[in-house]
Amino acid sequence: MAENFTPIQELGEFGLINSIQQSVKQFLPSTIKGIGDDCAVIEKNEEEFWVVSTDTMCEAVHFDLRYVPLKHLGYKALSTAISDIAAMNGIPSQVLVSLALSSRFTKEAVDELYEGMNHACENYKVDLVGGDTTSSQSGLMISVTVIGSVKKEKIAYRSTAKKGDLVCVTGDFGAAYLGLHLLEREKQAFLENDKMQPKLGTHSYLLQRQLKPEARTDAIFELEDLGIVPTSMIDVSDGLASEIMHLATQSNLGAQLYEEKIPIANETFNAGVDIFKIDPITCALNGGEDYELLMTIKQEDFDKIEKHPEISIIGFMTDPDQGVNLITKQGNVKEIQAQGWQHFKKPEKE
Amino acid sequence: MAENFTPIQELGEFGLINSIQQSVKQFLPSTIKGIGDDCAVIEKNEEEFWVVSTDTMCEAVHFDLRYVPLKHLGYKALSTAISDIAAMNGIPSQVLVSLALSSRFTKEAVDELYEGMNHACENYKVDLVGGDTTSSQSGLMISVTVIGSVKKEKIAYRSTAKKGDLVCVTGDFGAAYLGLHLLEREKQAFLENDKMQPKLGTHSYLLQRQLKPEARTDAIFELEDLGIVPTSMIDVSDGLASEIMHLATQSNLGAQLYEEKIPIANETFNAGVDIFKIDPITCALNGGEDYELLMTIKQEDFDKIEKHPEISIIGFMTDPDQGVNLITKQGNVKEIQAQGWQHFKKPEKE
Repeated sequence: MAENFTPIQELGEFGLINSIQQSVKQFLPSTIKGIGDDCAVIEKNEEEFWVVSTDTMCEAVHFDLRYVPLKHLGYKALSTAISDIAAMNGIPSQVLVSLALSSRFTKEAVDELYEGMNHACENYKVDLVGGDTTSSQSGLMISVTVIGSVKKEKIAYRSTAKKGDLVCVTGDFGAAYLGLHLLEREKQAFLENDKMQPKLGTHSYLLQRQLKPEARTDAIFELEDLGIVPTSMIDVSDGLASEIMHLATQSNLGAQLYEEKIPIANETFNAGVDIFKIDPITCALNGGEDYELLMTIKQEDFDKIEKHPEISIIGFMTDPDQGVNLITKQGNVKEIQAQGWQHFKKPEKE
Repeated sequence: MAENFTPIQELGEFGLINSIQQSVKQFLPSTIKGIGDDCAVIEKNEEEFWVVSTDTMCEAVHFDLRYVPLKHLGYKALSTAISDIAAMNGIPSQVLVSLALSSRFTKEAVDELYEGMNHACENYKVDLVGGDTTSSQSGLMISVTVIGSVKKEKIAYRSTAKKGDLVCVTGDFGAAYLGLHLLEREKQAFLENDKMQPKLGTHSYLLQRQLKPEARTDAIFELEDLGIVPTSMIDVSDGLASEIMHLATQSNLGAQLYEEKIPIANETFNAGVDIFKIDPITCALNGGEDYELLMTIKQEDFDKIEKHPEISIIGFMTDPDQGVNLITKQGNVKEIQAQGWQHFKKPEKE
């Protein structure tokens, strides 16, 4: 590579997106929001916006077909894309799916993939309305575009949190990351000895979170019922640390999170400590693929959410000069750094 | 591969799409038309529909970076996707672009790609509003989703041609295919002797049609000015033969085309006959990548279009039992068979 060229690895995914964003102009008044949030936002009618997002998964980068069943992969491709609609406080309605397949795939394999996608369509009440199938030189690539809509007064951007807002999350964190570790460990054992039976036994929660995650559209309906409009929101695909950094940076604020408040399932905690010797909070902050929602809400909404079994308050937004920090269980202040998933580094997550 | 599995090659692209289409259910009243046309059609408001399409291009399948400049590739990725919006008689408004890149790509290469895409955005007056960048194990993959809209009474499906309607096309055919031949020939010569200078000289039209095709959104405005609503329409990506078969089959009709009426540019004709020894009509029927529009119009619109320099009448729709035929210059009747581009066969176009 010549000296005056910049390898993509040096920029990273977000550097690349920033560079693209700067080069792009906008011409149309119907474009409400372009690059830079979970979805693009487009004028629909007087009451509503369209929210649209596209997501691509590549074999050997995002999934390993040696242990990912195609049916689960189809389901996951849709739920991870739909998660971006939820992140705008939107309801998904239509999906389009582009597949690139190498010639080693059979009709039966494609059927299995679509079985998973159709199952997701039923579950999320969305219609698969189009797409494209083509051949690839190597492996499988799935690109999913999701369309949804949201009432104008309910849309939740990343950039609109206010100082003092409560930071909340749905569900729990770190499980999908340990699910991946488990699958990778069994694959290694299998590659070394193909007579070996996989020991995945009691870890069904971790595996399910990795192989068949759910988009939290249920939480969108729940927030509606509670009468809460998040002041900002993002979905957690790259780990809690990376996503709180996005909310803080784009809202021009700081944030303070409390380690003891970050929800981690018992199974995740135990597997982290006992099996993988990884601090569970590291899995929660930097693991990724949880597809939960991270949002900020007004302090006055505290009562509505305080005792909710599926939504946890984990901190609050501060002045920007206070930075983004974690208060540990011991009461120490640790600066949060977004490690997350580095697409353009070697795919080594361990 | 086990005996009871079906290789994708046996099904072909359209067999695969049919199989997918049959497995998909629809739940929502806002979905007007799902899989099976150039775009999905979604309710927008009382007057208009949304039309949405997604298209994927993979390195070594759809393009060869040894002779395709990245700027042209970016432009082409957008114009070929926008062509699907034109095929519904729609006007494009927003695009989303997903890129998967291997680590050999530099920031400068991505900038060049986006320069071409931004140029297309300016040209077609569309906004690039989102997308996704990720790494791939091998090469470059570009997936483009385009959103447009069309007045309800003006939408043109594939399935709504009527017996007796005139078959019309924009522009001319076969040039992009010969442009590809030229580039492949020069690549071979270059691979055999890397001191060789390419002999692309006087074939700028063929090369431009291959490397930087245009979507015929201009024709959509032109039809509006002429007061014509096509009774059916499709864009010509896989060759005229394949596309007239789609219109005829989906409208449950036959068609009769006249060889002498099919527009072929002089440069295409001469290159076919003199250089490649291919019958130019074969290039026009089966070459593909012309991205012109093939439509049917009512006979009463004949006068409006008769002398139009950019729109040619090439035949008419018949009863289905008459089949889809070409009347040759010698007056013979030849059955038209859709060869087009076979994605799931080996990528040999010669």
